[in-house]
Amino acid sequence: MVNLARGTRDFLPDQAAARHAVIARLRTVFSRHGFEPLDTPAFERIETLTGKYGEEGQRLIFQILKRGEGGERGEVDLALRYDLTVHLARVVAMNPGLRMPFKRWQIAPVWRADRPAKGRFREFWQCDCDIVGSTEPLADASCLAVAADAFATLGFRQYTIRLNDRRLLSATARAAGVGADLEIGLFTAIDKLDKIGRDGVDRELAERGIDEAARARLWRILSITGDRDLVGGPHPRDAVVAGLREALAGVEAAGAALDEVVQVASLAEAMGVPSGVILLDPTLARGLDYYTGPIWEFEVEAPKVGSLGSGGRYDGLIGVFGKTAVPAVGTSFGLERIVLVMEEHGMLPARDDAPQVLVAVFDAANPEPAARAAAALRRRGIRADLYTGTAKLRNQLKYADAIGVSWVVIAGPGEAARGAVTLKNLGSGEQVEVPLVDLADRMVSHGITPVEQSPHPS
Amino acid sequence: MVNLARGTRDFLPDQAAARHAVIARLRTVFSRHGFEPLDTPAFERIETLTGKYGEEGQRLIFQILKRGEGGERGEVDLALRYDLTVHLARVVAMNPGLRMPFKRWQIAPVWRADRPAKGRFREFWQCDCDIVGSTEPLADASCLAVAADAFATLGFRQYTIRLNDRRLLSATARAAGVGADLEIGLFTAIDKLDKIGRDGVDRELAERGIDEAARARLWRILSITGDRDLVGGPHPRDAVVAGLREALAGVEAAGAALDEVVQVASLAEAMGVPSGVILLDPTLARGLDYYTGPIWEFEVEAPKVGSLGSGGRYDGLIGVFGKTAVPAVGTSFGLERIVLVMEEHGMLPARDDAPQVLVAVFDAANPEPAARAAAALRRRGIRADLYTGTAKLRNQLKYADAIGVSWVVIAGPGEAARGAVTLKNLGSGEQVEVPLVDLADRMVSHGITPVEQSPHPS
Repeated sequence: MVNLARGTRDFLPDQAAARHAVIARLRTVFSRHGFEPLDTPAFERIETLTGKYGEEGQRLIFQILKRGEGGERGEVDLALRYDLTVHLARVVAMNPGLRMPFKRWQIAPVWRADRPAKGRFREFWQCDCDIVGSTEPLADASCLAVAADAFATLGFRQYTIRLNDRRLLSATARAAGVGADLEIGLFTAIDKLDKIGRDGVDRELAERGIDEAARARLWRILSITGDRDLVGGPHPRDAVVAGLREALAGVEAAGAALDEVVQVASLAEAMGVPSGVILLDPTLARGLDYYTGPIWEFEVEAPKVGSLGSGGRYDGLIGVFGKTAVPAVGTSFGLERIVLVMEEHGMLPARDDAPQVLVAVFDAANPEPAARAAAALRRRGIRADLYTGTAKLRNQLKYADAIGVSWVVIAGPGEAARGAVTLKNLGSGEQVEVPLVDLADRMVSHGITPVEQSPHPS
Repeated sequence: MVNLARGTRDFLPDQAAARHAVIARLRTVFSRHGFEPLDTPAFERIETLTGKYGEEGQRLIFQILKRGEGGERGEVDLALRYDLTVHLARVVAMNPGLRMPFKRWQIAPVWRADRPAKGRFREFWQCDCDIVGSTEPLADASCLAVAADAFATLGFRQYTIRLNDRRLLSATARAAGVGADLEIGLFTAIDKLDKIGRDGVDRELAERGIDEAARARLWRILSITGDRDLVGGPHPRDAVVAGLREALAGVEAAGAALDEVVQVASLAEAMGVPSGVILLDPTLARGLDYYTGPIWEFEVEAPKVGSLGSGGRYDGLIGVFGKTAVPAVGTSFGLERIVLVMEEHGMLPARDDAPQVLVAVFDAANPEPAARAAAALRRRGIRADLYTGTAKLRNQLKYADAIGVSWVVIAGPGEAARGAVTLKNLGSGEQVEVPLVDLADRMVSHGITPVEQSPHPS
């Protein structure tokens, strides 16, 4: 029996339409915020991706066999897109004339050879907005503002933005007496707080060689937090700021980093992020090691699907293919999780692309009247499905019901001779003969909205 | 220096936006004709694609290395999408409950390891409409009708649909005295008529073992044609039909096939295909050997880019993964060629996603007034870019000019103290102070169209 590749899915019409509708809304929001579209290929030369995602990520890259002789020896030369950020870095390196700051969005599938699990797929879509070429907190805030607008436009009323900063995490490590050499291990462990809890993280920190006194100092700082599991409820942002300012007072540059995070949050609020949404959370770590400044994650309480997206500042990555460092900050949404949450909460928009009327074929030997009726409706911008099978009229009405249309046009030979068709409402059962030239207008008068006038020439 | 994988391209904002606009129009047309969206993964288990595209096609499939041990031995288990049709066949086999006839559209990239050349890429997009589960000529005609509407909606005024039928080609071979064993070779040779001309095809036919007398009979039939190169100008369809009817009179089933092709053409015209567009062309062969009935290609005179798309009936392919044959007919557009022709003829739509106004940052140390102004505009549905760099105001105005906006909002501290901003028109140079609460309305009164009201909560 034929089957899908592991970790991949088909999207049948209703699901595909829902995803398209969400993507369309995101695109509207992204361009409303001045981001511009960029499209990059699905695969890259393998050396472009190699060494960019850490050891763990490297193993998850899908590699493409060389064509010809090299392939016979098992050699690979291409790799499938793993995220959208490395591609952006390549585009920036290859297009020195790009206007800076360069604000781009990209919505595209990425592929990772992860072990498939509930909600985890090998093909999934990322929706990214990034600003390249600016170190200003206004750029970071812009990434939070576009995210908040996206959530609002999609109908999200309850979500939080957990905000932290890599420099604050480093300062926390310093203040606790953890050396710079253990820092990445520390971040990686803290990043698991949601999954393995405080005891699990503490055990991992001990295994990584952080002694008990340092761990106690660490937990004291991390408890100045918005994390529910640690303190029973989020602290107001001001309280977290004050607590951190005191706890990190002795660490160089911690105060400046804290000021900047606060500025990012308040600029984001000036740009429309609702107050109360942004929580300052010293326990937010983010696994990827390329972040250099503010970092964030978007979360909903229920259903528990992990973060809906995340982002942060990464001033070291974009320059990787060029000669100079290029600062950048960006935010990314996971389409699958967003659609999942919207589905569970009944937030998915109603389909606006499904047929509005079915034109039935009264006599399969003479379908021309039906063809003319369908053309008349489409010319007016009405979405008209024309039945192309051979079922009896009764079964065509069932088909109409199944595709969710309540209007059926029947073009029988009698009506055709009079230049007319029969218009039937499946709900009321009423039917009426209408001149073909009036058909489309009649549908519109019944509340069928034509979507876009077709400039169809005939 | 970092580079793209061979045969792939990036699409920078203007190009990406143009492609998105074309895709959006195609989607509107496809749903207006009752086709529904289907999305399938970018890769499949390799056995799903193996043996589906002939020897030539097989070599062009990108194969993905197994993860883990098998990969170390050079084993592959996945293959990149080569077209959209085999995926459709898999979906039909895996979803026995699908409502028939099943009308679906899919617009997606496919990948082929072809030698890159002008206009030929290794990643390109196909835009397909197919009807599965109907043998009716009305289904074939529906595929021509959706194509004609697509071309009209995109603004094409001059194009032709070359129409033929595989059964007529077979009948032609029979009438010329060519055996069934040489048939596929015959089709393959005739398919090259555009590229290598009559002499080239004749030579190839001779090499394939078709003798001079048979070739003479063949050319006599093929000259009853719409092909310009053979007869100096397309014949009216009726003349071609009459000529073929006479030439193929002795061949069984040729008359019925001819009747059906004529019916497809006239039903398509009843559905709005402009008269004169559909040419019956006995020389149209189409390389793929899975076609079983009517076949067609879409062409423009200039620029010479080959066909813009093609299609036909393929009653043997969809059932390949199941137990029963499932009839199908479909039409496919090549996005790249369509965009290329539209570009050359200045038909690409103006961007409708670019920023409408730039909010400048008067003082990088205090960007909050600018942030508030941007939020006010976006809340009203105006596409507002907010400058996030550190350039002087003068250079921000240049940036505004470069991104093509003619309105700049300047939020200086003086205006901010008065709850106002300065609105500057780059064209006239005029500038005026506007209360922030009136800013969005003022823009609208200046002819800036808000695209979609943002339900932004603040």
